[in-house]
Amino acid sequence: MSEIETRLDNGVLEVQFNRPEKKNAITEQMYKDLAQAFVSARVNDDIRVVLISGHKSCFTAGNDLKDFLENPPEDDDSPVFRFLQTVADFPKPIVAAVNGPAIGIGTTLLLHCDLVFSGEGAKFQLPFVNLGLVPEFASSYLLPLRVGHAKASEWLLTGKMFDAHEAKSAGLINEVYKDEQFFSAALHHAQKLAQLPNESVMISKRLMKQTYMSHTLQIMDEEGALFRRRLASDDFKKAVDAFLSR
Amino acid sequence: MSEIETRLDNGVLEVQFNRPEKKNAITEQMYKDLAQAFVSARVNDDIRVVLISGHKSCFTAGNDLKDFLENPPEDDDSPVFRFLQTVADFPKPIVAAVNGPAIGIGTTLLLHCDLVFSGEGAKFQLPFVNLGLVPEFASSYLLPLRVGHAKASEWLLTGKMFDAHEAKSAGLINEVYKDEQFFSAALHHAQKLAQLPNESVMISKRLMKQTYMSHTLQIMDEEGALFRRRLASDDFKKAVDAFLSR
Amino acid sequence: MSEIETRLDNGVLEVQFNRPEKKNAITEQMYKDLAQAFVSARVNDDIRVVLISGHKSCFTAGNDLKDFLENPPEDDDSPVFRFLQTVADFPKPIVAAVNGPAIGIGTTLLLHCDLVFSGEGAKFQLPFVNLGLVPEFASSYLLPLRVGHAKASEWLLTGKMFDAHEAKSAGLINEVYKDEQFFSAALHHAQKLAQLPNESVMISKRLMKQTYMSHTLQIMDEEGALFRRRLASDDFKKAVDAFLSR
Repeated sequence: MSEIETRLDNGVLEVQFNRPEKKNAITEQMYKDLAQAFVSARVNDDIRVVLISGHKSCFTAGNDLKDFLENPPEDDDSPVFRFLQTVADFPKPIVAAVNGPAIGIGTTLLLHCDLVFSGEGAKFQLPFVNLGLVPEFASSYLLPLRVGHAKASEWLLTGKMFDAHEAKSAGLINEVYKDEQFFSAALHHAQKLAQLPNESVMISKRLMKQTYMSHTLQIMDEEGALFRRRLASDDFKKAVDAFLSR
Repeated sequence: MSEIETRLDNGVLEVQFNRPEKKNAITEQMYKDLAQAFVSARVNDDIRVVLISGHKSCFTAGNDLKDFLENPPEDDDSPVFRFLQTVADFPKPIVAAVNGPAIGIGTTLLLHCDLVFSGEGAKFQLPFVNLGLVPEFASSYLLPLRVGHAKASEWLLTGKMFDAHEAKSAGLINEVYKDEQFFSAALHHAQKLAQLPNESVMISKRLMKQTYMSHTLQIMDEEGALFRRRLASDDFKKAVDAFLSR
Repeated sequence: MSEIETRLDNGVLEVQFNRPEKKNAITEQMYKDLAQAFVSARVNDDIRVVLISGHKSCFTAGNDLKDFLENPPEDDDSPVFRFLQTVADFPKPIVAAVNGPAIGIGTTLLLHCDLVFSGEGAKFQLPFVNLGLVPEFASSYLLPLRVGHAKASEWLLTGKMFDAHEAKSAGLINEVYKDEQFFSAALHHAQKLAQLPNESVMISKRLMKQTYMSHTLQIMDEEGALFRRRLASDDFKKAVDAFLSR
């Protein structure tokens, strides 16, 4: 049983975080598996849409901090960075189904999805600054573009937790469903997308993204270098010590 | 009686879709008349604001599909493309009054208007992908900029129909009025704009648009080439057959 | 007693408009004092966050028109322009606490703040066109980016007054509090920001702003030149005469 489950059905590749005992915290191995799933999906003509989800009460707690400290990303070729890159310029629609905690990369990932559906229990947080780190996954660029500078500052600078209604009102997500319905609703939307004329879908996604793509990839590099530098800071060490002694 | 009616009153040029028996579907001749109206308005100092509208229960059903198939746009110099260009960089304010269906170009046109007012019965739809086509009128660029990527994907990729309140909440339109009031409210706003210091108004519109203008015109070209290519696709033929056999 | 009061407490520099008898209308001397406060704050390591506010029932009525006519900004080196520049690329977070009138620069200033909190009694207005002038402080660029072109046109072209709920809904401000609470809430947020890892905060703000910074400064120059030209227009003279004879 892998900690990244995949299942192809009717043109929709379901990719699921599956490490419930650790709130779906993402390890280096899971990033490898995720990157592999997206790299394969890119060239597999049977796959028209990717649906990414966690569990009913947890999307993902973000990076697994313990694993992260043991296997820090060393450069642009780390598994986490390869995952970011393959998702950022993925040519087919990505649909997300989110409930429960969506922390750190659990939220920044959504900026690269095309449709995002959540349950009422979804909780989003971008605690990079609180940990002595800086934004990643081009969120410093894409979040202000998506929700405006004031809301982006509120989420990225203060690291506050926010709920599904705030996320929808700001334009981060498309729709909030009852907890029992968010996954089936997202699956339904993914299946409908998979039935539409595929070339029109892919051209349209490319047109919508192209203005921002080269800058997105460039910012990801810049954020990545700053992120790795901040991993060596006293601020990060203190935050980790506080976290591990909880 | 033209199918594009115009009327100048107190600095406001009213331009009206007037083909109610066909839900104001736009023919090649109507694009010619529309382009002509805007080209003249550009240089006529008596015209300070353009107000574009349809009828009380119908803005426009979009391109007239039958006419479109008989007179497909062949290149950048087609009447439809000349209309798009003259509206996209029109130097004076454009106000739109919308109720009932605003389909395809009936919605993308609004991205080039400065103030948009609708009745409660307005229904918006961007069914390009559903028809095997791709976005036009720079909507692949301007819509994500206006409403964020998630909402733009929902509207452009899935082709769903959406109502006035969703359009207002996303920032596509300014205000929703009761069906009896939307036109007089839009006219009132247009008349007030026409009374303001004209040079200040025009400089301000230019300043607000200039950052996006060259890219807007470039994307319109790119979309246009892809659009014409998709007109020759099996996907489009199938969609047309299904439509005509309804 | 200066008309710009400053007070440093626990990493937060409070900067307050203090000319209540004139609704905090800003004179050339006040712009000098404001610019000086921000220039000093930039290099003072004890200052981590700036909190800008007016009084409980008035943020600022904007430029003091009488003083403005006596001391018109002559070039890019005027006190007002130096204030705009030092705020636009200020490297530390700026929090604003707004209630009552926030007119002209009282609203455009907010586009350069990172968190904006208001009371329910806040009233915003951008009456540049009404005065025969044009937008300033990069508002012609930053406002459409923040709230979308339709809402930006409504506020910048028509010069309408709008309230705190409309401002929040559009994304101009973060939160609306009761009139008794907006200042203490803003101060609380500023103090919390000041406690976060400082280097992470400053890098994050720089990352969020950098894509737009050079264009922001360039547009401010362009707007400034147009603004000064419009000060010599008959439209402005007429508007001033009407204002002074009220």
